[in-house]
Amino acid sequence: MAPRNLLDLDDFSAEELMALLDRAEAFHRDPSPRRLLAGVPVVNLFFEPSTRTQTSFAIAEHRLGAEVVSIDPGDSSMVKGESIADTAITLAAMGVGAVIVRHRESGFPYALARSFPGHVVNAGDGTHAHPTQALLDLMTLRQEFGRVAGLRVAIVGDIAHSRVARSNIHGLRTLGAETILVGPPTLLADAMAEEGVRVERDLDAVLPTVNAVMLLRIQRERLEGALVPSVAAYTAEYQLNARRLELLRDGAIVMHPGPYNRGVELTDDVLDFPSCRYVNQVANGVFVRMAVLEALCS
Amino acid sequence: MAPRNLLDLDDFSAEELMALLDRAEAFHRDPSPRRLLAGVPVVNLFFEPSTRTQTSFAIAEHRLGAEVVSIDPGDSSMVKGESIADTAITLAAMGVGAVIVRHRESGFPYALARSFPGHVVNAGDGTHAHPTQALLDLMTLRQEFGRVAGLRVAIVGDIAHSRVARSNIHGLRTLGAETILVGPPTLLADAMAEEGVRVERDLDAVLPTVNAVMLLRIQRERLEGALVPSVAAYTAEYQLNARRLELLRDGAIVMHPGPYNRGVELTDDVLDFPSCRYVNQVANGVFVRMAVLEALCS
Amino acid sequence: MAPRNLLDLDDFSAEELMALLDRAEAFHRDPSPRRLLAGVPVVNLFFEPSTRTQTSFAIAEHRLGAEVVSIDPGDSSMVKGESIADTAITLAAMGVGAVIVRHRESGFPYALARSFPGHVVNAGDGTHAHPTQALLDLMTLRQEFGRVAGLRVAIVGDIAHSRVARSNIHGLRTLGAETILVGPPTLLADAMAEEGVRVERDLDAVLPTVNAVMLLRIQRERLEGALVPSVAAYTAEYQLNARRLELLRDGAIVMHPGPYNRGVELTDDVLDFPSCRYVNQVANGVFVRMAVLEALCS
Repeated sequence: MAPRNLLDLDDFSAEELMALLDRAEAFHRDPSPRRLLAGVPVVNLFFEPSTRTQTSFAIAEHRLGAEVVSIDPGDSSMVKGESIADTAITLAAMGVGAVIVRHRESGFPYALARSFPGHVVNAGDGTHAHPTQALLDLMTLRQEFGRVAGLRVAIVGDIAHSRVARSNIHGLRTLGAETILVGPPTLLADAMAEEGVRVERDLDAVLPTVNAVMLLRIQRERLEGALVPSVAAYTAEYQLNARRLELLRDGAIVMHPGPYNRGVELTDDVLDFPSCRYVNQVANGVFVRMAVLEALCS
Repeated sequence: MAPRNLLDLDDFSAEELMALLDRAEAFHRDPSPRRLLAGVPVVNLFFEPSTRTQTSFAIAEHRLGAEVVSIDPGDSSMVKGESIADTAITLAAMGVGAVIVRHRESGFPYALARSFPGHVVNAGDGTHAHPTQALLDLMTLRQEFGRVAGLRVAIVGDIAHSRVARSNIHGLRTLGAETILVGPPTLLADAMAEEGVRVERDLDAVLPTVNAVMLLRIQRERLEGALVPSVAAYTAEYQLNARRLELLRDGAIVMHPGPYNRGVELTDDVLDFPSCRYVNQVANGVFVRMAVLEALCS
Repeated sequence: MAPRNLLDLDDFSAEELMALLDRAEAFHRDPSPRRLLAGVPVVNLFFEPSTRTQTSFAIAEHRLGAEVVSIDPGDSSMVKGESIADTAITLAAMGVGAVIVRHRESGFPYALARSFPGHVVNAGDGTHAHPTQALLDLMTLRQEFGRVAGLRVAIVGDIAHSRVARSNIHGLRTLGAETILVGPPTLLADAMAEEGVRVERDLDAVLPTVNAVMLLRIQRERLEGALVPSVAAYTAEYQLNARRLELLRDGAIVMHPGPYNRGVELTDDVLDFPSCRYVNQVANGVFVRMAVLEALCS
């Protein structure tokens, strides 16, 4: 039985993750509308706006027949001082079945889940976790290689601030892949290394050894701040470009959670690269979100 | 035959109110989705944002199969100078069946209804009326006591600025309950007293005499303004807390329209009190809104 | 076969336009909900908010059974620097079938369509085009006169800045109507004249000669700017009022795309005029949008 909520991937066993990916593949093969969530209100509570993630969730919810309620909590009581617990109690009383929540505060979805008797899906909390993104990445890897176990995956860039990286580390480890984190010391501490997770500084040395490269979006704020000497210094060492694509072994793929910064963490060559899987990732996003909602709500 | 609009409860006879509550109970017993409003566009026009009320209406509309259109009229032509009448004419021409409207201006829904040939539901106008809140309060009372007639209900707090109080006074009187308004003179004028409605100042004296206490949200702006000497002075006299809960007679219930200010009009003890009916009120909100839409649109 | 997108009416032949109007009439006769777009996500991407147009599209989409996703792109990545192409790629990857887009930049929907493999509907781009508005105007003319060919239509006001005028000129010419543009030189250059399109300055002289008058909304910003000496000077020459209605021939109709400025381009007399077709235009808007979505997506 899957957990009640999807807060991060570390709550899920390998069997549970594989079952979710299997269901996502089933939705991929047959994306026709269902009535699985007919009569179930699903509330999208995005305190941080996100066009792409919100659209993907909304499509998944509609596809399952849910009652889709999208709230812009901008100046609602939820922001004005009502406690998270009170918001949870109120939504539950209305019969809301699931809440999809994004918040700039790490841990917010956990606080909501403590008081909400329905299901909470973390759509991104601060720098902490983004589990549906990691699920769609795992789905993309499995589509490509037939398995996740035994793969070697590099995650490149601003690991320190990346909720995408953090959730992927959990998922990759649970499914038996090896993770190599690559970035400068200011964006990636040595202490991130652990069982199954290595820290490396030299991207050129890592590229020939991996099955997949996951690039991360680097926030321009970081580049202009103290964490990186300059955009030029960063791109010299960590940008994926035509020259570095040549270093990849045959069959290796490139991934990015989007939105990407052309000219920063990647060049246009990467997006034109035949083994760039960005489009597959986005497509899989709808299917893993359908699978998560089905698993939690049924 | 019910009126064409729900602007406030004083337009409804006791029979009409009871019929609405009966239908709401039917939806409570069987909340499965219906197609009663299939093909009927319902527009949610919240000039004042309200997460909870808007979510409750949206769930009710989805549950009846309506075409749910939620508009954020922030900077639309409706705000930029188009007259209310022009907005009404335009929405009607599109075939909109019902408009759910919240506005900070008392009377706005009445102005809209004058030009709109469909149905208008007042979701809160200024300090004037909030009839669906009062309906869900009446439903909660009837669920508890089997009837509303003959009950004695205290409404406590900032009566002067409360659209919830005003609509409840109408509904309670029409259904034969006695209302006791309790608050300081700055928030409750003696002139509010009328047939079936008493004004009292001493909450401790009132509590042992009533079947139900309806607390009101007190806006922090009021407490910080000239109307109340201080939060401490207000809470000393009108906050419901553990000591005052002891004064209630057996079987008496506590209600609050939400969102509540913990530590102001109530303490956490009230929310933990077994006869606090806040959750029932919120749940009933969806069902009375379904009943209202059904009654108006069919 | 209709074009893949609706960017402006000049991409459509007379046969294609008539087919769209025929389908819109069919929806007018039987506006009951359909499942034509079941399982098709339609994204409403209004960079410029527009309550009326967005509501009309949303109703049309719901009526056809689409998965309606309305995005407020206010501070999303689409605005923050992601390229139009990247947005298009991402929406396509999610399986979005059609994007309805409004943007203050002329040409934006064309840029989107270049990268989006689904269907793009232009809901208004800068001062360039507003093709669904022109379609509903053509439908209104045909309802009134049984045909568009051979009609003489005056478009009055701020032609220079009007996307409504521009799209109507294309549609009227394609269907064989004669267009007379009327306005002051600052808002209407002589160069707008072409085959089938005349430029005139004297509204009083034009009114007795036409089958229909399309008024345009004049932005108050223009009146307060350098383009018109004063509101009084403009209304003296170009406002439609009780006196000028008398100049119309029997059977002539008046149209306006809304929202209108009472007291500027028209007086209340015009809205009370029995042959003012504003309400029919708005109603037809839902039907032409259904027809467009059906034609593009099926």
